[in-house]
Amino acid sequence: MFEKVTLIGIGLIGSSLSHVMRREGLTKEITVSSRSQETLDRAEELGLGDNYHLDAAEAVRGADLVIVCTPVGAFESVAKTIASSLSDGAIVTDVGSVKGSIIKQMQPHLPDNVHFIPGHPVAGTEYSGPDAGFASLFEDRWCILTPDEDADEKAVEKLTSFWKACGSMVDIMKPDHHDLVLAITSHLPHLIAYNIVGTADDLATDSKSEVIKFSASGFRDFTRLAASDPTMWRDVALHNKDAILETLGRFSEDLSAMQRAIRRGDGEKLFDLFTRTRSIRRSVIEMGQDVAAPNFGRADGSED
Amino acid sequence: MFEKVTLIGIGLIGSSLSHVMRREGLTKEITVSSRSQETLDRAEELGLGDNYHLDAAEAVRGADLVIVCTPVGAFESVAKTIASSLSDGAIVTDVGSVKGSIIKQMQPHLPDNVHFIPGHPVAGTEYSGPDAGFASLFEDRWCILTPDEDADEKAVEKLTSFWKACGSMVDIMKPDHHDLVLAITSHLPHLIAYNIVGTADDLATDSKSEVIKFSASGFRDFTRLAASDPTMWRDVALHNKDAILETLGRFSEDLSAMQRAIRRGDGEKLFDLFTRTRSIRRSVIEMGQDVAAPNFGRADGSED
Repeated sequence: MFEKVTLIGIGLIGSSLSHVMRREGLTKEITVSSRSQETLDRAEELGLGDNYHLDAAEAVRGADLVIVCTPVGAFESVAKTIASSLSDGAIVTDVGSVKGSIIKQMQPHLPDNVHFIPGHPVAGTEYSGPDAGFASLFEDRWCILTPDEDADEKAVEKLTSFWKACGSMVDIMKPDHHDLVLAITSHLPHLIAYNIVGTADDLATDSKSEVIKFSASGFRDFTRLAASDPTMWRDVALHNKDAILETLGRFSEDLSAMQRAIRRGDGEKLFDLFTRTRSIRRSVIEMGQDVAAPNFGRADGSED
Repeated sequence: MFEKVTLIGIGLIGSSLSHVMRREGLTKEITVSSRSQETLDRAEELGLGDNYHLDAAEAVRGADLVIVCTPVGAFESVAKTIASSLSDGAIVTDVGSVKGSIIKQMQPHLPDNVHFIPGHPVAGTEYSGPDAGFASLFEDRWCILTPDEDADEKAVEKLTSFWKACGSMVDIMKPDHHDLVLAITSHLPHLIAYNIVGTADDLATDSKSEVIKFSASGFRDFTRLAASDPTMWRDVALHNKDAILETLGRFSEDLSAMQRAIRRGDGEKLFDLFTRTRSIRRSVIEMGQDVAAPNFGRADGSED
């Protein structure tokens, strides 16, 4: 499908892309770039690329597909670095969780003779780094592309085929709409999880160890999202600020209403809310976005 | 271990107790009681008891262990109903997620010749009803007992052995302390999950279906807790009001601080929070309260 794919950044997503590209034979050559020598060495030990570069400009030379897999805060610097080394007609894409900011950071620096098509595979785990990747990460998950209106159709089609070959379903969206939808489905849940685990972390040592001890009663679910990569999530929070603050505002309003219902002993209101949320769970399972097994099918004492 | 155990209420916890008591041979006879004929019929189809009663007073006659497994709001009515039919020396316990309120509801009605030892197995899934139970639910989970200071030691020991035979570890606590700890580890997470899924449920139909479609990016984790039994959780919210409002207050304060950090672009503060929450996840896994597998080891496309 491609002659040479360059991965700039080799964390969970970059390394998963390497695994799936190898498995599916999507490119003849994989070039890996990272600003950190340590990460690059580890990527080499894991055999994630065919060659390795600290300098992203070196890495993109001759590549017909460049995928930026760094935290969202690094995109302007990456764009400036690679701009003059990109091959004529290359597709430049990314995997960032925010699209508006990425376009603002990269677009002005990229030359006209490349196809810039922002992307976001909606997939991940709580683990990060080059060791965290695996080939099936993208299977049955959506990948959202946010091409410009005058983007080259063939390039969009080629990138679509690439993600489908990685196991994904592909959706096309406007960048702003992406950022609003993901603020609700991804950014808010992560921030809420960080917040609740932070609230527990502030407790005195005794209470904190009790929270951990009895965490199977609900709390443990939040600790997974709150173990995600801090750099990635700091950058998401800073670069999708408006949509996140809007979403946090709605959440806080609803939380105040719930608090009032509890204070007033309004059981009917609580029962109504706790009932209608069930149907969303059913839809998530029906659409193949989660498993129906109790407790996510955790392989511990909680299932038969 | 016991001659006759009576389960009042036969939902997830009651039916799981039935399965594990049979597997471990903990009693000669299991009597099941439910206020609903439909539930009782279903329990009989599933063979969860040796006999079945709509009337809890009938059900407890001759039992040396009575376990109340109804929602927390029903305890006073249950206590009044069974009080005069309890056998001399019987142990009366429960599985409710709130302890202070349950003691207030039951204690005044129970006769002096029974041993009332409140309990709470810290275990569950998002499913409810007599079909949801399974024998291994309590394995490696904590069960908290909150006996009165002058409770009979032998009775406490016997109930402790019972829960250990069910696979649990047992802890003894003051009721108020239990209610505060569980407000943080269980009640707050459930209420937050209900709230965030409720916020999404309020969106227009188009946006709602997008939230479901892209839920694998974080949101889906919350839908599990938000699919829990509405009656149970309404009663918990109403019966542990003070501890829950205190905990919600702390959470909201922390959320405001996070909101301010995002608005001001304070990346350092966000990075610090997102980093220290990771160590709690590690402790939860080290203490055997969750699995280390990515995405809770969900058996879908997200793992190798």
